[in-house]
Amino acid sequence: MSAQVAPEVHLADLIAALGGDLIGEAQTRISRIAPLDEADGQTISFLANPRYQAQLAQTNAACVIVAPAFAEAAAKRGEKGGEKGGERGGAVIVTPDPYLYFARLTQWWAARSRPLGAARIHPSAVVDPSARLGAGVDVGPLAVIEAEAEIGDGARIGAHCVIAQGARIGAGTRLAARVTVGFGCELGQRCIVHSGVVIGADGFGFAPNFKSEQPGWEKIEQLGNVRIGNDVEIGANTCIDRGALADTVLEDGVKLDNLIQIAHNVQIGRHTAIAGCAAIAGSTKIGAFCTIGGAANVVGHLVLADHVHVSAATLISRSISQPGQYSGVYPFEDNASWEKNAATLRQLHSLRTRLRDLEKKNT
Amino acid sequence: MSAQVAPEVHLADLIAALGGDLIGEAQTRISRIAPLDEADGQTISFLANPRYQAQLAQTNAACVIVAPAFAEAAAKRGEKGGEKGGERGGAVIVTPDPYLYFARLTQWWAARSRPLGAARIHPSAVVDPSARLGAGVDVGPLAVIEAEAEIGDGARIGAHCVIAQGARIGAGTRLAARVTVGFGCELGQRCIVHSGVVIGADGFGFAPNFKSEQPGWEKIEQLGNVRIGNDVEIGANTCIDRGALADTVLEDGVKLDNLIQIAHNVQIGRHTAIAGCAAIAGSTKIGAFCTIGGAANVVGHLVLADHVHVSAATLISRSISQPGQYSGVYPFEDNASWEKNAATLRQLHSLRTRLRDLEKKNT
Amino acid sequence: MSAQVAPEVHLADLIAALGGDLIGEAQTRISRIAPLDEADGQTISFLANPRYQAQLAQTNAACVIVAPAFAEAAAKRGEKGGEKGGERGGAVIVTPDPYLYFARLTQWWAARSRPLGAARIHPSAVVDPSARLGAGVDVGPLAVIEAEAEIGDGARIGAHCVIAQGARIGAGTRLAARVTVGFGCELGQRCIVHSGVVIGADGFGFAPNFKSEQPGWEKIEQLGNVRIGNDVEIGANTCIDRGALADTVLEDGVKLDNLIQIAHNVQIGRHTAIAGCAAIAGSTKIGAFCTIGGAANVVGHLVLADHVHVSAATLISRSISQPGQYSGVYPFEDNASWEKNAATLRQLHSLRTRLRDLEKKNT
Repeated sequence: MSAQVAPEVHLADLIAALGGDLIGEAQTRISRIAPLDEADGQTISFLANPRYQAQLAQTNAACVIVAPAFAEAAAKRGEKGGEKGGERGGAVIVTPDPYLYFARLTQWWAARSRPLGAARIHPSAVVDPSARLGAGVDVGPLAVIEAEAEIGDGARIGAHCVIAQGARIGAGTRLAARVTVGFGCELGQRCIVHSGVVIGADGFGFAPNFKSEQPGWEKIEQLGNVRIGNDVEIGANTCIDRGALADTVLEDGVKLDNLIQIAHNVQIGRHTAIAGCAAIAGSTKIGAFCTIGGAANVVGHLVLADHVHVSAATLISRSISQPGQYSGVYPFEDNASWEKNAATLRQLHSLRTRLRDLEKKNT
Repeated sequence: MSAQVAPEVHLADLIAALGGDLIGEAQTRISRIAPLDEADGQTISFLANPRYQAQLAQTNAACVIVAPAFAEAAAKRGEKGGEKGGERGGAVIVTPDPYLYFARLTQWWAARSRPLGAARIHPSAVVDPSARLGAGVDVGPLAVIEAEAEIGDGARIGAHCVIAQGARIGAGTRLAARVTVGFGCELGQRCIVHSGVVIGADGFGFAPNFKSEQPGWEKIEQLGNVRIGNDVEIGANTCIDRGALADTVLEDGVKLDNLIQIAHNVQIGRHTAIAGCAAIAGSTKIGAFCTIGGAANVVGHLVLADHVHVSAATLISRSISQPGQYSGVYPFEDNASWEKNAATLRQLHSLRTRLRDLEKKNT
Repeated sequence: MSAQVAPEVHLADLIAALGGDLIGEAQTRISRIAPLDEADGQTISFLANPRYQAQLAQTNAACVIVAPAFAEAAAKRGEKGGEKGGERGGAVIVTPDPYLYFARLTQWWAARSRPLGAARIHPSAVVDPSARLGAGVDVGPLAVIEAEAEIGDGARIGAHCVIAQGARIGAGTRLAARVTVGFGCELGQRCIVHSGVVIGADGFGFAPNFKSEQPGWEKIEQLGNVRIGNDVEIGANTCIDRGALADTVLEDGVKLDNLIQIAHNVQIGRHTAIAGCAAIAGSTKIGAFCTIGGAANVVGHLVLADHVHVSAATLISRSISQPGQYSGVYPFEDNASWEKNAATLRQLHSLRTRLRDLEKKNT
């Protein structure tokens, strides 16, 4: 059973909790949230993208969340047939931003269908006596909280987490099972951190020492920490390294997907969102309100302005001072075509020279 | 000592267990599995790829697994010398598909050289009384099994695993140490899941809310689950996110390597195999019998047909309706050449225009 | 408080521990390490790259580490003003390789500011009686050490680590919290392994079996181990798979960053360094003293010579026999330009043909 199925919800409950203007019957029963084209007679759905407007007429949804411009069309839906044929078209919630309303609906729904358990310190957890735990802190089974760590009010520390010496977790922050927060690192309030995240491993720093009798890389101990703001979300198995001298910093509202690498001394501006498998190399500073596509990479020691958007799988190799969308991906094609074009690419510079020569001949 | 070394195996044992036609002495002793060119007089080897046929004559293997077409050549090997010079050429197992035979041999070998311990619930595990454990279930040290989780007969849950509330693990499925299965998620029978895997973390879903007084991303709670079929294998540190509304689905026989990202609502058809560090973005549907190369990426909301093969490091940015091999990788070269060609690539469109102009002049 | 802040250090202490020629007052108090442009009057800084030479004159650092060529300029700094205006320019440590000196300074500093706790076997750890632990071994809370594992003298096993049956950890090696070392795998001495690392998961090996009545991939059990030399460092959430028949091998001094995939039977030569999110596919052999850039990929069954350097995000698809720098990345640009150039790239081979035709007309 998926959590989107919840018992006994009526539109009146939703409107009371989330607002919006209701057209239709407040006692309409809702048991499911789904897209317009998968909706049944107990489903609430939404129209966020005008591109899907045509689905409005066809949907069987009991209620549709729409912007004012679509209120009339939504209210008339189903009049000509469908499962609800003959009846009136079902309920409508009118709101300025249906997608935002939908997001809040999922939050309300999750709170109802997956209530958090009562906070407790599980007896199997290993909590150092010098750790400071706020009011209503929940500590899961087999978690480890080391000396002088601080856990803010209402924070929830999942099973198998390690909060190392002197680390600080802000109020209301939730760590899923198996999150590691290194010594001295800090997370703000209301953060969400998913399983497998490693905050505060050593940055990758070595001095070459290849002229000595025992040649090799000499470790540069990473003496900085990681500082993470409020309302940050960090996806599963993502890594955020501690700084070499200064700290690695994520500002408020940053959202990171899974399997992302944030190297030492990176700074990420507020509300920047980074998709899965991206990597930001050391000391790079990314602005606020940026988006970085999946598997994109930014090399080290760069500065990206605010509102820069990097396409998936693109390598950013120079600083970017202007907002905008940036891309650099080899376009895929069937393998035989790719082989021919890619082989030719190795001659591209000489092709240009040959073209120039021809142009000279032709003038 | 590697596990491929096992005591007292005779060819008769192999034939009894795995079949095949034996040419040679059934009491030949085998202590090792190795490629033809690394074989010694107690080694069993195989010829799967005709390209390596020449190694047949040179190998010192005590036994060689071959297809019928190579039976004669295999039986005659070593007649002209080598360690076994003068003797007859050693034993041969003839079978229609030597590589498949080799695979089964490794399974038989592993079962002999690494027998599983007797199933037990380790006393340090934290198992909720409402969890339902089948017959012969093994639970490792410090594992956590939450309320109403179900573990099928003979399943093995490694040390430090977390099976969250209401999750279901099918019969005979084996979780290595430190696997996290989120609440409500399901795995089928006979699956193998390696360490560090995170199943059921939240998908990366947010509604933009940047016009409000407190601008930021509004979380879309992920209300779906993850459903995984039978005989699925999942490599170390791979992440499979729960769906936003519907579920994320892996069908029977899917094989995932390490460090792969499977985003919310992805569907992967049966027997599709995906190599390490690949990423599949949200809501994409991949067909059956596909292969996705290492570090390849598929963007969101696409549909890939059955039998599509994506080359390593390729970004798939559009749906693919035809079976075949698809590629899109910048061909590497020495750095100086790359710099020239890559710089020219930024002028490619204008080069085409100039070429057109020249063509007009020349007609 | 970051660890780079430490109480009561005087230059005399540094010189005694690390050597170097001091110009200036040995009792100068140091409380911080920082770059030249962030230094204050209690900071020690360094000039490693002549490019930053201009910062020497401006820095407020109490002491600067420089090469002999810059000793005079460093000693004269600040004479014309700045915070220390009027006074003499502050202390200087002269040493042949300032960056190497800085690396050792961070080590000395870390040892002072973050002393390791006394070694103990935490009572919550699950240690099999047949495991062999050397002198001064530290085992953190809730770690699991299985039968016949060997832990060398002075090694430190972090919280939640799993050292599986028969694995061996060399003397002085340190495992951060939550590291998994599979059965039979070996690490040498003085290694550092960060959280979330998985050593010894199964390599990704399957024989196709699609003609049978139950089509699917047949698992090839991975019978090899992982062998890791001395002085190897492995970053967070990196995966190193066990070999199929022979072992996967990392030689002495290899340095791996975070989220790296090392597939089965890979061999990596001594002192090779690999940056984050890179992936090395199965059976590839990488030489000594190589560097592999972040998110770079090397396909399987290749051989890379010693001293090969691969640029970030490059796919290496053929063996490389010559030392040098190799690259293959689509250069990023603004999205509109990229769209035009990438579309044209699909016609590149035909453009070449058209160019040839024109050339023929013009001869």
